[in-house]
Amino acid sequence: MAEKKTMQLVIVRHGESEWNKENKFTGWTDVDLSEAGVEEAKAGGRALKEAGFDFDVCFTSYLKRAIHTLNHVLEEMDREWLPVHKSWKLNERHYGSLQGLNKAETAAQYGDEQVKIWRRSFDVPPEPLSEDDERCPHLQEMYREVAMRDQLPYTECLKDTIARAWPYFQDEIAPQLKAGKRVLIAAHGNSLRALVMMFDKLTPEEILEVNIPTAIPLSYTFDEDWNVLDKHYVGDPDVIAAKIEAVANQGKAKK
Amino acid sequence: MAEKKTMQLVIVRHGESEWNKENKFTGWTDVDLSEAGVEEAKAGGRALKEAGFDFDVCFTSYLKRAIHTLNHVLEEMDREWLPVHKSWKLNERHYGSLQGLNKAETAAQYGDEQVKIWRRSFDVPPEPLSEDDERCPHLQEMYREVAMRDQLPYTECLKDTIARAWPYFQDEIAPQLKAGKRVLIAAHGNSLRALVMMFDKLTPEEILEVNIPTAIPLSYTFDEDWNVLDKHYVGDPDVIAAKIEAVANQGKAKK
Repeated sequence: MAEKKTMQLVIVRHGESEWNKENKFTGWTDVDLSEAGVEEAKAGGRALKEAGFDFDVCFTSYLKRAIHTLNHVLEEMDREWLPVHKSWKLNERHYGSLQGLNKAETAAQYGDEQVKIWRRSFDVPPEPLSEDDERCPHLQEMYREVAMRDQLPYTECLKDTIARAWPYFQDEIAPQLKAGKRVLIAAHGNSLRALVMMFDKLTPEEILEVNIPTAIPLSYTFDEDWNVLDKHYVGDPDVIAAKIEAVANQGKAKK
Repeated sequence: MAEKKTMQLVIVRHGESEWNKENKFTGWTDVDLSEAGVEEAKAGGRALKEAGFDFDVCFTSYLKRAIHTLNHVLEEMDREWLPVHKSWKLNERHYGSLQGLNKAETAAQYGDEQVKIWRRSFDVPPEPLSEDDERCPHLQEMYREVAMRDQLPYTECLKDTIARAWPYFQDEIAPQLKAGKRVLIAAHGNSLRALVMMFDKLTPEEILEVNIPTAIPLSYTFDEDWNVLDKHYVGDPDVIAAKIEAVANQGKAKK
């Protein structure tokens, strides 16, 4: 009997950022991890190590809360020498003109109903940034090497985020998995939702209900046809249950 | 008049490591930066930022004291999103069977004269590790992806370090400089000596007298034919002078 080939991927959402605490829309704003976020990331790395995970290549976004999460995970695993590829296509959803605004202030400015639509619809983006807004990626050093300038967003809905994160996965990450490499991705709530939607074959309605907990590694094993053979969170079951509960409640409180 | 094309490179030696303090031969042992080393690295990053330096691509070794130095420099410069290439060919000189030994104990075991020869000759390596020694890179996870197993050393003299670091520079780094990319390399005393020897066209005797201070960025500007147009340390002149003095005295104390 021929040996069955499987593919091994772990995705991890960055730990708590400084702006999570401040209740602001973050998007592409390059805020760092909070102290709690650093500890979460380290715990995620230790959980992977204790469960016997290992990797060959890593991917992350251009944003430091994801890069630092990956660095802490790799440090805990003693794997800092692994190759790391960074791409803006794994960035968080761009939140347009909402970036940097307090969520309560935004509701006061635009009304609760409008904010709900931006946050919870699949294909309605917030108002775009104006072209001269310093929050525009087109004006930021970080994106100066992006050759296709018109790919850089002024705002995004979840559908837009999927439209750049999924092709990046297909073009850059999937070939590594097919070649037998064990892949680790450290990214963001919405860029990871893009992947989960495709892996789990979810509808737009279904993916909007999925909230990935922070810094809990999520392991996927695929067969050669990308069917999910196994999917599980890695770590202490009690911690995982508490975090899943917390993100679920967070989702409810937002409604 | 045609514009003159120049190439911009900065090299930086990692900050103080935990074993520098313990007076041990380190080589490829993967020890971390000391707290002082972290502060040195951050200061190096701030100096580069204040002097207006910027980069397009970075290179470092597989060893965490160099990787962490680079991470701290990039964090201070707000350039963590830059691409980073890691290679074992930028590792420190492999110190063979001396790795992990206290320098005083080594002198007692092998004699002062022999240790002097290993430390200060260009082409006499320390005794090699035996093939089953757990310090052998052949047996370590970190080097499992190195396809050419016979390139991995059991010991090295400075000449051997140059024989792998310089071709790596020529094959992987020089093309980036030629393409107009501004390059930052964070590496080690001896892998950087390999580069300096070639850049400055030094003899074996001369390079043995060169001691690169830790975490002080060294800027090189080349013309298209690799002639050095400018070479200078970046940072506070008093700090630089004190560090250069310190490594010079360190060298003397070792004799």
